[in-house]
Amino acid sequence: MSDIGTLYGVGVGPGDPELITVKAFRVLKESPVIAYPKKRKGSKSYAHAIAEGYLHEQEKERLGLVFPMTKDRDILEREWHRVVETVWEPLSRGKDVAFVTEGDPLLYSTFIHLMRLMNQCHPEVEIQVVPGISSINGVAARLGLPLADGDETLAIVPATDDHEQMKKVLQDHACVIFLKVAKVIDPMLRVLEELDLLDRASVVTKATSSEERIWKEVSELKRAELPYLTLMVVRK
Amino acid sequence: MSDIGTLYGVGVGPGDPELITVKAFRVLKESPVIAYPKKRKGSKSYAHAIAEGYLHEQEKERLGLVFPMTKDRDILEREWHRVVETVWEPLSRGKDVAFVTEGDPLLYSTFIHLMRLMNQCHPEVEIQVVPGISSINGVAARLGLPLADGDETLAIVPATDDHEQMKKVLQDHACVIFLKVAKVIDPMLRVLEELDLLDRASVVTKATSSEERIWKEVSELKRAELPYLTLMVVRK
Repeated sequence: MSDIGTLYGVGVGPGDPELITVKAFRVLKESPVIAYPKKRKGSKSYAHAIAEGYLHEQEKERLGLVFPMTKDRDILEREWHRVVETVWEPLSRGKDVAFVTEGDPLLYSTFIHLMRLMNQCHPEVEIQVVPGISSINGVAARLGLPLADGDETLAIVPATDDHEQMKKVLQDHACVIFLKVAKVIDPMLRVLEELDLLDRASVVTKATSSEERIWKEVSELKRAELPYLTLMVVRK
Repeated sequence: MSDIGTLYGVGVGPGDPELITVKAFRVLKESPVIAYPKKRKGSKSYAHAIAEGYLHEQEKERLGLVFPMTKDRDILEREWHRVVETVWEPLSRGKDVAFVTEGDPLLYSTFIHLMRLMNQCHPEVEIQVVPGISSINGVAARLGLPLADGDETLAIVPATDDHEQMKKVLQDHACVIFLKVAKVIDPMLRVLEELDLLDRASVVTKATSSEERIWKEVSELKRAELPYLTLMVVRK
């Protein structure tokens, strides 16, 4: 018996509100407090918008958490502790908190930091994760592209401008998903060109959402300005 | 305007029936024909059992598809064509067919073969994929284990007894998911031992289902008999 609430990490999927699971829907309905990340004060998160579609007219406490976007370690430390204490407050009153995240809570998500720090500061809090459809599976579905089959291997890699490293991962795996390609699209195109893989690549942003965009002629993206959450799939 | 039905590849998730998406649920309800893989005549598939939980009392045509389990190319070819023609039959009558798969339809799933061969034999059929929670995200949620964060990379690899290849992928990535480890558990344990990663590995079978089993002391698994769909997560 515990008088402390449970913290749920709830994946709400890649963008299409129908790609939420039955379990995520139930946990959102049952949790008296809904927490969601926001980039800066006043902005509405993508995950929050999906969740709200299922919560309209429901009386809930809402916790909008502003995550630190700095590399200054002192500020980071202080701001992260502030976030954890904000979530701890309703938990300490025995209320369950559902923290919503885009995609899956354990794959490149802010929930990972929250979970780690909550374990550290308030180890008595029970934490449960409700998995979500990641953007990777969302993209594959929209492209009708098999990610891996049989004895093939798949790698998921944040894109960088390290030419040799990007080349190596493409040589090692049948399929590679490069995350956050926007800032390094030109170096990425040079790697694809060198390996003669330009026609095996697709670039996708906000897959499955109403703002989805898909580029299949990736060589046209030279010097293009792409949204932050853009990814590239290369299938050899 | 087409008089031909649509073929849906519907991921029903890793095992917990609540981990089906709202979209998968709707597509199953709306499709007059439900197709599912079965290993041999008479056996019931895992995916089919999950789907049936949502379909009870509904009047549907059911197509149980026996997939060829041989390496003989002539038999494979003939049997696969038989499967495709079985699915084509209701499609040709204008009926939508929902083919249910465990996990995600585009990640190591029999749907990949069905899709490829349908494209080849009946290119006029529209194919749509409803992504599902893969066992990988299911396992992470049950272990409370972050798969990757920040600039970390993740690899998904069918396990083999190729010591050097398994070692290399573990050296190259922060996290590796090895699929189908049952047949090669002893060689896999030797790789982990050599890299001093035994305490960073977990072995899981049927994650999120009522038959789930989790082993965190993997060194105890030497010479163990494990179920076919067992996977191993190694997080450095």
